[in-house]
Amino acid sequence: MKKLIFLVLFVTAYVVSFAQFPPQGKVEYKTMPSKILNEDREYSIYLPKSYATNTDKTYPVLYLLHGGGGSHKDWPGRGHVGDVANQLMDSNEACEMIIVCPEAGKTFMNYFNHPEWRFQDYFFEEMIPFIESNYRVIGDKKHRAIAGLSMGGGGTVVYATSHPELFCAAYEMSGYLYRQDLPFLDKNDPVQERLQTLVEEHNCVKIIQNADAQTVEALKTVNWFIDCGDDDFTFDPNMEFIAALRAKQIPYQLRVRDGGHTWEYWHSALYIALPFVSNCFRGI
Amino acid sequence: MKKLIFLVLFVTAYVVSFAQFPPQGKVEYKTMPSKILNEDREYSIYLPKSYATNTDKTYPVLYLLHGGGGSHKDWPGRGHVGDVANQLMDSNEACEMIIVCPEAGKTFMNYFNHPEWRFQDYFFEEMIPFIESNYRVIGDKKHRAIAGLSMGGGGTVVYATSHPELFCAAYEMSGYLYRQDLPFLDKNDPVQERLQTLVEEHNCVKIIQNADAQTVEALKTVNWFIDCGDDDFTFDPNMEFIAALRAKQIPYQLRVRDGGHTWEYWHSALYIALPFVSNCFRGI
Amino acid sequence: MKKLIFLVLFVTAYVVSFAQFPPQGKVEYKTMPSKILNEDREYSIYLPKSYATNTDKTYPVLYLLHGGGGSHKDWPGRGHVGDVANQLMDSNEACEMIIVCPEAGKTFMNYFNHPEWRFQDYFFEEMIPFIESNYRVIGDKKHRAIAGLSMGGGGTVVYATSHPELFCAAYEMSGYLYRQDLPFLDKNDPVQERLQTLVEEHNCVKIIQNADAQTVEALKTVNWFIDCGDDDFTFDPNMEFIAALRAKQIPYQLRVRDGGHTWEYWHSALYIALPFVSNCFRGI
Amino acid sequence: MKKLIFLVLFVTAYVVSFAQFPPQGKVEYKTMPSKILNEDREYSIYLPKSYATNTDKTYPVLYLLHGGGGSHKDWPGRGHVGDVANQLMDSNEACEMIIVCPEAGKTFMNYFNHPEWRFQDYFFEEMIPFIESNYRVIGDKKHRAIAGLSMGGGGTVVYATSHPELFCAAYEMSGYLYRQDLPFLDKNDPVQERLQTLVEEHNCVKIIQNADAQTVEALKTVNWFIDCGDDDFTFDPNMEFIAALRAKQIPYQLRVRDGGHTWEYWHSALYIALPFVSNCFRGI
Repeated sequence: MKKLIFLVLFVTAYVVSFAQFPPQGKVEYKTMPSKILNEDREYSIYLPKSYATNTDKTYPVLYLLHGGGGSHKDWPGRGHVGDVANQLMDSNEACEMIIVCPEAGKTFMNYFNHPEWRFQDYFFEEMIPFIESNYRVIGDKKHRAIAGLSMGGGGTVVYATSHPELFCAAYEMSGYLYRQDLPFLDKNDPVQERLQTLVEEHNCVKIIQNADAQTVEALKTVNWFIDCGDDDFTFDPNMEFIAALRAKQIPYQLRVRDGGHTWEYWHSALYIALPFVSNCFRGI
Repeated sequence: MKKLIFLVLFVTAYVVSFAQFPPQGKVEYKTMPSKILNEDREYSIYLPKSYATNTDKTYPVLYLLHGGGGSHKDWPGRGHVGDVANQLMDSNEACEMIIVCPEAGKTFMNYFNHPEWRFQDYFFEEMIPFIESNYRVIGDKKHRAIAGLSMGGGGTVVYATSHPELFCAAYEMSGYLYRQDLPFLDKNDPVQERLQTLVEEHNCVKIIQNADAQTVEALKTVNWFIDCGDDDFTFDPNMEFIAALRAKQIPYQLRVRDGGHTWEYWHSALYIALPFVSNCFRGI
Repeated sequence: MKKLIFLVLFVTAYVVSFAQFPPQGKVEYKTMPSKILNEDREYSIYLPKSYATNTDKTYPVLYLLHGGGGSHKDWPGRGHVGDVANQLMDSNEACEMIIVCPEAGKTFMNYFNHPEWRFQDYFFEEMIPFIESNYRVIGDKKHRAIAGLSMGGGGTVVYATSHPELFCAAYEMSGYLYRQDLPFLDKNDPVQERLQTLVEEHNCVKIIQNADAQTVEALKTVNWFIDCGDDDFTFDPNMEFIAALRAKQIPYQLRVRDGGHTWEYWHSALYIALPFVSNCFRGI
Repeated sequence: MKKLIFLVLFVTAYVVSFAQFPPQGKVEYKTMPSKILNEDREYSIYLPKSYATNTDKTYPVLYLLHGGGGSHKDWPGRGHVGDVANQLMDSNEACEMIIVCPEAGKTFMNYFNHPEWRFQDYFFEEMIPFIESNYRVIGDKKHRAIAGLSMGGGGTVVYATSHPELFCAAYEMSGYLYRQDLPFLDKNDPVQERLQTLVEEHNCVKIIQNADAQTVEALKTVNWFIDCGDDDFTFDPNMEFIAALRAKQIPYQLRVRDGGHTWEYWHSALYIALPFVSNCFRGI
């Protein structure tokens, strides 16, 4: 028994010590009030290593969107965004930044406005202002980026195209860009249908195809990155999105790596996404 | 309320469908009896995609060891070994193999023999035979490999050097190769001290340095791979291990990548380790 | 002056020694007779390290095609295929293989049959038999692969689809897959026009689209890999080729990496291509 | 014959067009006068894409040193530094910078001062001022970096340690850091011996070991990166260099990748080195 107690102490000491040595950036789970959604909304936030001690410093910010049926805990929990950020910032491959994961999933699972769920309004009118007044965020286009996976990849495109004046970079992974009638979806389910309708109303390919000359110029001020696996069921829509960008001569980066609609893909995407947005945040 | 029920169904359907499409290899958590340790021992096992359906096929096997204070759940849970294996096997970067994670951690946290805890004997006399009689394992040196992290990296070296006739490949990550008096360890803790003593009795650098000519020839039949981060506290011992191998002209691969003693490091190591052991398993 | 002579000797010794230490695979430049083309044809050939000493060993073979306007010297000279092969074989990421680069470029610049230039016939009826009778090649489908860049990417597809029974793997890079009226081409140039016509007669997308059920089954026995940069002017045709493969449910690997129609792209592609074909050559 | 002429024109047009489309950074080969060395010295210089058109812009600068027995043509010719820079700058993985390759090789092959060959004085007193007055270089520590391979890796360390106030980053590859009596060197050759003596007088490991507290603080203002292959004959000295840095608590990045003392290694190192120095040049 004594042995066991010693052991538990040892393991605890071991794990605690590792976590503390050296000091690292941390993920926190929080809530914020929303009048628009008429409820408190959860979010997670990564604060880099220097945040607690270097109290005069302000930081760029990345909004990182989860996928359909997910939550603000996905990127830290399965995407290990805190661990990836710590490693990339230690080696200066990414600059220090704040990373915010909203929670869009519990009721309508969606980033778009619906009469009963104006999430897009919440994001722009409440969340961004809340983050920028409660954390030391630089708060200009040059230091604000957005990224997301699947449904959150669609959200990334919709948000960055509706407010190109707010984001220097948009990195979408495996974006669910318009309604796809996938074999595992059920057309007889009214909740699914409402969601699908909402997604199709924000068809990302059409948004680009229908952009007028002035909008296209605005979209060129965003650095676009598309990252989609060769086995992903969103591959075709993403290639159509690319074709639409090219038709409008909007520059982009594209990577098709090995994989499907999986967390292994999105986790590894962070090793590209964080340096990419860092390079947009950085001076030259 | 109805809305919520629909939603939960949708999310469940969504997640379930993704998991099932396409069929993938799976990790199972099991126990096996041990006379040597006088108790049932847990282990986890990854069975590749074809295992359930291709019932005549036999497979190579990789034994994958966890670190100090860990368990057989670490590699599947935080190392995501099942997800990595599925991806690499889908693209043929790794061949189909069975991956077995023993559980060495609950009492003495150690892979080595101690009068009260003969884990090494258990591994060679009970676990390997158990796996090879209960699963469709090819079961020769050419198709058996070992790998592990930290304390399990030390285990990898000790097991492969004590039985080079059993393994074609040994891949050690961030190996804890001999007693290191690290700042977070407590010399006044008798359990820690016993463990440290046991580790030092299996000093991996000395094992190589003291190997006689015949042993050296046997060690050359194992394909060695050392993988250690540039910020890892085990870096120096690993470089001494390399120097010992080179002094004996035992070939090896070495990678020093960015990172410390972290799961980001070990998770990414799997993308190198599984192809490496596959290339040893494969014919030419 | 004496100083200078010493110096030259030193540099020479230095370079020579490096080249010799350790023994490495080598590229040789050769010619072979062709009745079909009514002239001697040049080729280059990489022979792996063990070829000269292990005189009983037979090897898999990769045919590696140059681009339009190029020659058999491109892959060794600018693609550094010998250096890449040596490195990958040393670490066992690729298996030992023979790599053959034909010369298709001096008159019609083309891999396809034309009444005055039956290069495809030369390749299948003369070159493959010549290589297999003059070098220690294993000489079955399982150990024969084909790869190429640009016009040679088109050649790769055309050759592997016309003889799927001969190749286990086909890796096309930046494939020029059908006639593209690119801004730097001149429609008034009859030589260019003849070439373009010939290319269009071997439209790779249509080859897949028009394949009957039996052919599709045969094409599934080839491991396909498409690799094309996100800035490449062949991007769209390559995506159409992918879509055609998918429509016929022919499995493939796809990578879109950073870059254009450049040697940096093709050189780095070798680090993927040689392991890929090795995994096809290898036993399991 | 006419056919052939058309063809040559076609190939020429083809190659020329590719080279011009889109506009790219270029390498130029130049000479500059040296009073210290009493002769004109050659150098090569990479000017990024915007240099010719954006005539108000100033740029960071990287000095990139060749190896023993080499010349200023090595990095552009075999290292393909222009092609790598163009690709990385197009995707913003590297920022636009000027890259200068001095020529240290024709007589004494050395970066160090010798009574008859004061190359180090030339570099600091003539070359840097010449570059900064003849090209639009920013010209402060924050925007000046140094890198090099083998003998030039030693040069990198010696230059950055002797003038840490001038460089924000030092990236050494496969550094020849002190006299090594390698099997292919000849102790009876007085030229070689003089060179070896000179190298040993600039023993990089001892430079760090002997640094006093004030120097150590200065060395911490340089971002150090060591990159050395696992098969390189300079591996041991590089690990001793790392140990010396760590003993003085000077931070560094280290990578040990697959390979030896080869151009494949150094070429691929550019894909790490250019982003690394860019991140040092960039604002945050």
